[in-house]
Amino acid sequence: MRTAVSIDIGGTHTKLALVSDSGRISHRLTLDTRSSRSIESYLSALFEAIAGLVTQAASENMPAKGIGIGAPACNEHKGTIAHAANLLFKEPFPIRQEVSERFSLPVILLKDSSAAALGEQRHGGAGGMQNFALITLGTGLGSGLICEGKLVRGARGLASEFGHAIVDPGGRECGCGRRGCLETYVSATGIVRTAFALLAERKADSVLRGMSYRDTTAEDLFMAAGQKDPIALEAFERTGKILGLKLNDLVVAFEPEAIFLSGGLARAGELLLEPARKALQEHALHLMRGKVKLLLSELGAHDAALLGAGCTILHQQKEKIS
Amino acid sequence: MRTAVSIDIGGTHTKLALVSDSGRISHRLTLDTRSSRSIESYLSALFEAIAGLVTQAASENMPAKGIGIGAPACNEHKGTIAHAANLLFKEPFPIRQEVSERFSLPVILLKDSSAAALGEQRHGGAGGMQNFALITLGTGLGSGLICEGKLVRGARGLASEFGHAIVDPGGRECGCGRRGCLETYVSATGIVRTAFALLAERKADSVLRGMSYRDTTAEDLFMAAGQKDPIALEAFERTGKILGLKLNDLVVAFEPEAIFLSGGLARAGELLLEPARKALQEHALHLMRGKVKLLLSELGAHDAALLGAGCTILHQQKEKIS
Repeated sequence: MRTAVSIDIGGTHTKLALVSDSGRISHRLTLDTRSSRSIESYLSALFEAIAGLVTQAASENMPAKGIGIGAPACNEHKGTIAHAANLLFKEPFPIRQEVSERFSLPVILLKDSSAAALGEQRHGGAGGMQNFALITLGTGLGSGLICEGKLVRGARGLASEFGHAIVDPGGRECGCGRRGCLETYVSATGIVRTAFALLAERKADSVLRGMSYRDTTAEDLFMAAGQKDPIALEAFERTGKILGLKLNDLVVAFEPEAIFLSGGLARAGELLLEPARKALQEHALHLMRGKVKLLLSELGAHDAALLGAGCTILHQQKEKIS
Repeated sequence: MRTAVSIDIGGTHTKLALVSDSGRISHRLTLDTRSSRSIESYLSALFEAIAGLVTQAASENMPAKGIGIGAPACNEHKGTIAHAANLLFKEPFPIRQEVSERFSLPVILLKDSSAAALGEQRHGGAGGMQNFALITLGTGLGSGLICEGKLVRGARGLASEFGHAIVDPGGRECGCGRRGCLETYVSATGIVRTAFALLAERKADSVLRGMSYRDTTAEDLFMAAGQKDPIALEAFERTGKILGLKLNDLVVAFEPEAIFLSGGLARAGELLLEPARKALQEHALHLMRGKVKLLLSELGAHDAALLGAGCTILHQQKEKIS
């Protein structure tokens, strides 16, 4: 059994673990990404955690063969993180090189959503699929595309930003500085915005009328929907509808076999899937109608990214050896 | 020098030629697609034209090594044409098999826009590019995508229908039976629809006010724009703007190095490119701003498809031999 250190860098948490090529995840660790005040202190905590896992792997007679990193807003060609909306890294930071030099190990850097797509392909529901998309619904909306068997990285390693496809050019303000991006509607934060817009539009009573915007989460909406709260139910309905409509753009361009939903908001399951499937079907070109499956990821959001990043570096090393 | 028979099936014309692997096109022929009343009479004319080219190639001591076909609404995996809006083929017709059996030659069937993208890559402006899109602007809007070096065919060979990405869910009626598809706005027919909508919206005088909808073509708008006709100018402006905005969806998904425009409407050049570039730039994610080139195809619309279909079958045959 071969082992890699795998890291999923997120705006809230940084998850680390040892990953084997058979897909086993062990020795999980979580860092609070937001508690670091500077890049230096974040890296110091990150390096310490990696060192611990490298030592652990060695002590089990399975020395780590490489390090796989999934991160938002990274450039896979250059190995840098930059302009990350929810991270301290604003200027391009050469994380791949820094980690590789520090631990004398090969390092791969992947977009978190791309890592999750690769994880889904290796150990989740996309086994054997040559054309599929994975959409992560967290604070933002991430996308990973596998097209004709290959991960889509783009001309400069900047592809897979479908969260910034524009739904409404004059619409909601986005963290990226533009307006109307898909993730301002379809994400854990987007659905809260929709619920508050509905509080203004509708007269129906709702538990949400007693809550502040700041305190309301997608989880609250999920709980309220479980109590048949009309505003929460309509928020899921509307969110799913926008998702289904916009996924049609991906479908006509790439014709994936399936689209997987992952991340916190995907835990809402049929509440979100049912209106999304309906809209995808309704807006589908007749040739493709009913042919593209919309499914929930078979792996947890973090596990998919950890598995994808870890297994990809192991696979690369294996290819180099053979 | 190796030679193939190459065919570009269009709703108005079917173009045929001999294509060499060095990119030379010779012995061009054109059939009037619309003059055939039945599939049988169309195929009879097509087979006769192919037979003539096969004989011609043999007489020049360069026997045809294969036949490449570009066609709209085809399934590249199955080798069929079906549900073609502007052709007689409504039920799936196994054209690849029929042509192959008739001439005892290997046949490849490609979407016309995919064939054009491959032609642009081999002999046009996309030489060496691993990630690019080609958009054909004719009666409809076709798309060909090359992603990580590979032609995007999709899970069932139905990809590259970006003309049916939805711009406005309640918008213009499309030939496909749905509403608001990109090609109802951005195509040779779409821009005429926009000009007529503008005649209703605006009070400005225009040469178009004396013309019937049926008689007006994109060519008329181009001529009127040359005379500074305000309605024609605004029609190009608005068309380019919608194109640039919608191309952003492709850009965020797969980050092409360039997007090429081809087909009749692309001949308008800067009239269309300038507002399209502006909108693409304006709506671009800041990471990608100014990085994706919007260019005119370096090949004529039919030549690109002929070259792509012909060279691809020659290339496939060569790979099989070696």
